[in-house]
Amino acid sequence: MITTDILIIGAGPTGLFAVFEAGLLKLKCHIIDALPQQGGQLAELYPKKPIFDIPGYPSVMAGELVDNLMEQIKQFQPGFTLNERAETIDKLEDGTFIVTTNKGTKHHAKVVAIAGGLGSFEPRKPLIENIAFYEDKGVEYFVKDPELFRDKKIVIAGGGDSALDWSIFLADVASEVTLVHRRNEFRGALDSVEKVQELKKLGKINLITPAEVTGIIGEQHVEGLAITKHDETKIIATDYFIPLFGLTPKLGPIANWGLEIEKNAIKVNNALDYQTNIDGIYAIGDVNTYPGKLKLILCGFHEATLMCQSVYNRINPGKKYVLKYTTVSGVDGFDGTRKEAEKQVVKAIE
Amino acid sequence: MITTDILIIGAGPTGLFAVFEAGLLKLKCHIIDALPQQGGQLAELYPKKPIFDIPGYPSVMAGELVDNLMEQIKQFQPGFTLNERAETIDKLEDGTFIVTTNKGTKHHAKVVAIAGGLGSFEPRKPLIENIAFYEDKGVEYFVKDPELFRDKKIVIAGGGDSALDWSIFLADVASEVTLVHRRNEFRGALDSVEKVQELKKLGKINLITPAEVTGIIGEQHVEGLAITKHDETKIIATDYFIPLFGLTPKLGPIANWGLEIEKNAIKVNNALDYQTNIDGIYAIGDVNTYPGKLKLILCGFHEATLMCQSVYNRINPGKKYVLKYTTVSGVDGFDGTRKEAEKQVVKAIE
Repeated sequence: MITTDILIIGAGPTGLFAVFEAGLLKLKCHIIDALPQQGGQLAELYPKKPIFDIPGYPSVMAGELVDNLMEQIKQFQPGFTLNERAETIDKLEDGTFIVTTNKGTKHHAKVVAIAGGLGSFEPRKPLIENIAFYEDKGVEYFVKDPELFRDKKIVIAGGGDSALDWSIFLADVASEVTLVHRRNEFRGALDSVEKVQELKKLGKINLITPAEVTGIIGEQHVEGLAITKHDETKIIATDYFIPLFGLTPKLGPIANWGLEIEKNAIKVNNALDYQTNIDGIYAIGDVNTYPGKLKLILCGFHEATLMCQSVYNRINPGKKYVLKYTTVSGVDGFDGTRKEAEKQVVKAIE
Repeated sequence: MITTDILIIGAGPTGLFAVFEAGLLKLKCHIIDALPQQGGQLAELYPKKPIFDIPGYPSVMAGELVDNLMEQIKQFQPGFTLNERAETIDKLEDGTFIVTTNKGTKHHAKVVAIAGGLGSFEPRKPLIENIAFYEDKGVEYFVKDPELFRDKKIVIAGGGDSALDWSIFLADVASEVTLVHRRNEFRGALDSVEKVQELKKLGKINLITPAEVTGIIGEQHVEGLAITKHDETKIIATDYFIPLFGLTPKLGPIANWGLEIEKNAIKVNNALDYQTNIDGIYAIGDVNTYPGKLKLILCGFHEATLMCQSVYNRINPGKKYVLKYTTVSGVDGFDGTRKEAEKQVVKAIE
């Protein structure tokens, strides 16, 4: 059982920054995220794209912002349960919570902060009748470990950056890469499109366009795919089928936690502390809604900060919260490190 | 008459960032500040000190943050009225406002956003009976233009960074620099204290400690100062007296604008848009108060953003506000410049 003060659901920028503000108040955090890495959308969807509206950054790459947040919070040693989705929540008699993931990992926390962004990212699945049967038996919606495909035959489907980039990467790993797309045109970075063109000429990528994967065959594992081009269907042999049709965010199991939901977002008390209708459960960042809400990263930062103050008061009843400025008081990490402004001296001049 | 959409009072980080968010909504801003430069406290009080709680910055010098904000907003060409204090406000029949400064500059705006921080910074003045008479006649509380002191005799009073740093700087400008402090010990950066020690040994700074300036003499302009040390008072000749005893923030004339004030801060509707009790006047950043308020820069950024959305709805009634992400839509400056993410290509592979 993992125990913590604040269990944060979602390792996007809002969830990460909450660790910092909690740390200033000596509160420990643990973060659950369905994705295999920190950063949420920023890391998964657009790490190499610039954001122009982070205050104080005329421009910052999304991936760089995540790296900076990770650096900012590392003093406070957050725990992470990655690649697992928060599934169920139980409130104990003492007001604390147990949150269990889809893989059965249990977390015990004084409060829960949902920083789930637009939801957990679920892959868009192709409409192939028996595809569910082959999931984890040759059908993979994410490339978690490229080594899985070493010296195997693979078919990638899709026409965007993910399909292009993984085709390029896996051309050196798999024994055979086939890329199937329903159009002749791909949409992605110019570099990637040109690289696939080159690999195709070198015979390292088989390209089948405009075409669609319309069926899967195999006894216990994917053995072949039906690919339809101009109303003509052929079967090709393959070990893996990797459809990369993008991700779509789903609020997922959290929708069943008894929280007040409005337009696919969680209603919170924005007049005070971003707490939900359930005492002890907060919602911050893009996942929440209130009058005037804007789904911006900078708003999540503010919400996380006021939330931490409320949690402090909840966990330390009667203790007065005194705001300290980091410039004046410095920052003491849980790892024993200290960041502080250069000290002034008091010194006589003779 | 200066005209604008949003008249911002206060050029601190919150006021500056408001220009950016307003710009995204095609709203023009003009900023009034009592200090001679942008940045508020960050530029005036601690430009070379680090801040550790700006989201995404493990550490950033206050002055650097101001520079970055200025860079971020320059596309939106804000106007500035610096070195003047907002004095009076008049609401016209059409709901717009005229704000006049202490120097008589008039500004006409659709809405007013008070981002006044802790108030306008007023110098702490020494308790010398006739000092008011000599203000602008040899008594200067700020060093606005060092050239004023070229080849003049000056006396600086104070024991902190400002007194030390200006003594050092002006030692090369003035014909004679005398530094008076009521203790032998100075409080400041080690470098500065050591540099003053050195300049004293070289005879470039006269040091009188522990002593106080207790009187001013002169017919129409400062001609000399009475300096008291160990109950003994001497007169020394000087052209200028520069007391640097720090700044103290005062809400100032804004306190008389009919706004609801609580604990020296302006009450706002934090459940919606940070508007004050007067329709069309908003208050954002450290100057405002509401339940759970934290006087943090990152909170001011959020407040500025929600305020701009409200202003947009006010100025464009009935027009639907559609949030655009800068990464997706880019940023179009009022100066014709455009910032945007590298475009994706749509390209066939043959």
